[in-house]
Amino acid sequence: MIYVTRKEHFNASHRLHNPEKSDQWNTKTYGKCNNPNWHGHNYVIEVTVAGEPDPETGYVIDLGILKQIIKEKILDPCDHKNLNLEVPFLKGINPTSENLVREFYYQLKEDVDDAASENATLFSVKLFETERNIAEFCPDRAIKIT
Amino acid sequence: MIYVTRKEHFNASHRLHNPEKSDQWNTKTYGKCNNPNWHGHNYVIEVTVAGEPDPETGYVIDLGILKQIIKEKILDPCDHKNLNLEVPFLKGINPTSENLVREFYYQLKEDVDDAASENATLFSVKLFETERNIAEFCPDRAIKIT
Amino acid sequence: MIYVTRKEHFNASHRLHNPEKSDQWNTKTYGKCNNPNWHGHNYVIEVTVAGEPDPETGYVIDLGILKQIIKEKILDPCDHKNLNLEVPFLKGINPTSENLVREFYYQLKEDVDDAASENATLFSVKLFETERNIAEFCPDRAIKIT
Amino acid sequence: MIYVTRKEHFNASHRLHNPEKSDQWNTKTYGKCNNPNWHGHNYVIEVTVAGEPDPETGYVIDLGILKQIIKEKILDPCDHKNLNLEVPFLKGINPTSENLVREFYYQLKEDVDDAASENATLFSVKLFETERNIAEFCPDRAIKIT
Amino acid sequence: MIYVTRKEHFNASHRLHNPEKSDQWNTKTYGKCNNPNWHGHNYVIEVTVAGEPDPETGYVIDLGILKQIIKEKILDPCDHKNLNLEVPFLKGINPTSENLVREFYYQLKEDVDDAASENATLFSVKLFETERNIAEFCPDRAIKIT
Amino acid sequence: MIYVTRKEHFNASHRLHNPEKSDQWNTKTYGKCNNPNWHGHNYVIEVTVAGEPDPETGYVIDLGILKQIIKEKILDPCDHKNLNLEVPFLKGINPTSENLVREFYYQLKEDVDDAASENATLFSVKLFETERNIAEFCPDRAIKIT
Repeated sequence: MIYVTRKEHFNASHRLHNPEKSDQWNTKTYGKCNNPNWHGHNYVIEVTVAGEPDPETGYVIDLGILKQIIKEKILDPCDHKNLNLEVPFLKGINPTSENLVREFYYQLKEDVDDAASENATLFSVKLFETERNIAEFCPDRAIKIT
Repeated sequence: MIYVTRKEHFNASHRLHNPEKSDQWNTKTYGKCNNPNWHGHNYVIEVTVAGEPDPETGYVIDLGILKQIIKEKILDPCDHKNLNLEVPFLKGINPTSENLVREFYYQLKEDVDDAASENATLFSVKLFETERNIAEFCPDRAIKIT
Repeated sequence: MIYVTRKEHFNASHRLHNPEKSDQWNTKTYGKCNNPNWHGHNYVIEVTVAGEPDPETGYVIDLGILKQIIKEKILDPCDHKNLNLEVPFLKGINPTSENLVREFYYQLKEDVDDAASENATLFSVKLFETERNIAEFCPDRAIKIT
Repeated sequence: MIYVTRKEHFNASHRLHNPEKSDQWNTKTYGKCNNPNWHGHNYVIEVTVAGEPDPETGYVIDLGILKQIIKEKILDPCDHKNLNLEVPFLKGINPTSENLVREFYYQLKEDVDDAASENATLFSVKLFETERNIAEFCPDRAIKIT
Repeated sequence: MIYVTRKEHFNASHRLHNPEKSDQWNTKTYGKCNNPNWHGHNYVIEVTVAGEPDPETGYVIDLGILKQIIKEKILDPCDHKNLNLEVPFLKGINPTSENLVREFYYQLKEDVDDAASENATLFSVKLFETERNIAEFCPDRAIKIT
Repeated sequence: MIYVTRKEHFNASHRLHNPEKSDQWNTKTYGKCNNPNWHGHNYVIEVTVAGEPDPETGYVIDLGILKQIIKEKILDPCDHKNLNLEVPFLKGINPTSENLVREFYYQLKEDVDDAASENATLFSVKLFETERNIAEFCPDRAIKIT
């Protein structure tokens, strides 16, 4: 099993806010991340595809094609945008890194699986909100029950 | 002459916009950076002090004190804020990296010079809007006339 | 399953030494890492929590709280300290990266699990002794028997 | 279970080319990576060994010994070389990152397992062709069937 | 005086070789960098423009335009190419980092100066052959005669 | 004028302490950096040589030779050592980054100037105590009197 990863980046503004909760709850829960005037990040995204390389090309997936899919599905809608207001597939989503990375995974899933080699599939999406705060969505990694 | 540098970071939203110009001019000049819904960055700031180390402490400046000055003068007003709307010393400033880094320099100048050793002074402030886009304000570096 | 990671750092001195063995054995086994006058590192620690985000907050764990737990449990006792002599929870531990990262995991376990969302738990702790030498403790990652 | 990783690097030239296919197929499949005059990379390799630390040394593997094995098995044959023409264990291999990383794993396997502690084994090899294009070979990570 | 920098990258193969000298001299002088089968690098280039920001745009230079100039003048001719054989403006140049960075500077000079604000000019070009080996061409930085 | 830089690293322990001052002064001045049980760092050193490339080699200095000089003059005496106790050329020096970087410069000066091309000389030494705390010694950079 081989894992190939492509790394990209985009810049965006956002705020953390749960509209079903009071302003007081939001301020207490999210602190300065709840700022109604927004803040922003240089997001870095790593997309990993796992599987067997195609015997003819030696590729699990052509990383040039993966780059193009990430551009169309994630960067074009999100770069230099407000993640709360302007991204169609994030409407109604509170843009914590956890929620973003799960939406990004499903946004990419179909096109990546189509472009990957026969025995390969989208494995994980990792999102660096900053170098210090990171979220990863990886539904297929097995965990031991302990 | 010794140069000491402290590196810090903050996250903020902004847009590039010159209010004295038409919307058309702003769109043409700034493109997606003019988005009225804002975008944002993980800014990294490097502050450099130049001079002779104090003979007793061996410090050009105590970097713990420099860190504290950067926190008070830059990070506290800017972190998780909207640079166009919420930072008192940036009122009326179009937040290009060039304009930000010059304002940050003068915001830091007096306190840094006071805290530095007798023969040392603030030398430069460098701002990384992203890893790829960088601005530095450094009024005292000599340039040859060519 | 979502994994969130917080990255922190501390500086410390140490030496590798097994007191139950001869000096000759220690010199042969650890080489310059056995130097009785100590050496040191800028350690980087990455703490990963895995689980389902809380539906109200969208957080697997509030990374601000995770940062605070790492500070209290790891950074406060270890930063600018001698890992062989001064850290209560490392008494009697030979501070290889392997031994450190396991102790750090158990030092963090209870508080992190308490602070994480209902279906989330501490997943792994990764320690960078240098950029080139890394250890990770991850008891719950499933491995195939091959 | 503890994972220890050693990071090394080498520089090499290569081209992607499947000699069983037409020039037209190769140009279409590999684009500029098929350039017959070669291009090159600063490759970074991360080798991870997993297992229980030896109770006497506290090491899963002595990273100094792992460094030496990587040097002999990978860096000496590959550094400043043409990966298509000059590396004995890559003869007949189309040097995609996927193919390289699998060959590197088997090139390292025996010596690493011999040098590791009793209950430890080579776990994965990760190859960064660039910071943005990464491949990992990891036959023992369990994946859920979904 | 403000300095703005744009960072880009490209991958290429090369060898160090002075055709006016004997093979023996070249082997002795350049060692493995003289390999006739080539080796390669992930080059990183940083282009710095110095001057006063335009009062209307707040830009020393529009970094989007600078990015485009670097693409046309450096990346398009050099990326995935053999620097000894395929780059018109490097014909007859022995591609040490020193020689490359000087040629890159003059390749960029006219277009960058045209695109920069009225009082700004190309200041320096920095080339990272690897993270550890770096060359910079900067004709206008004043040096004290000592 | 071309500047070439070589980057190396070493690990060491130290404490900041001025023996001519009281314990109280040292505690107040250096805080946790004064810990009598030492702490340590992964130091990164960047050595820059400035001048004209040799017309035959195209080198300002052979970076392989520069690497060897740094190894002999800095890394061998300092790596995995206690900078206060064990480094002959640092005897009596309080190891602040400022003091270290100046001593490193003079330790390197003669050999680097001998190895550099005819019109080249050691220009600066930069020391990263951490990624965030940096000192540079550069006696020949001209500064404007302001």
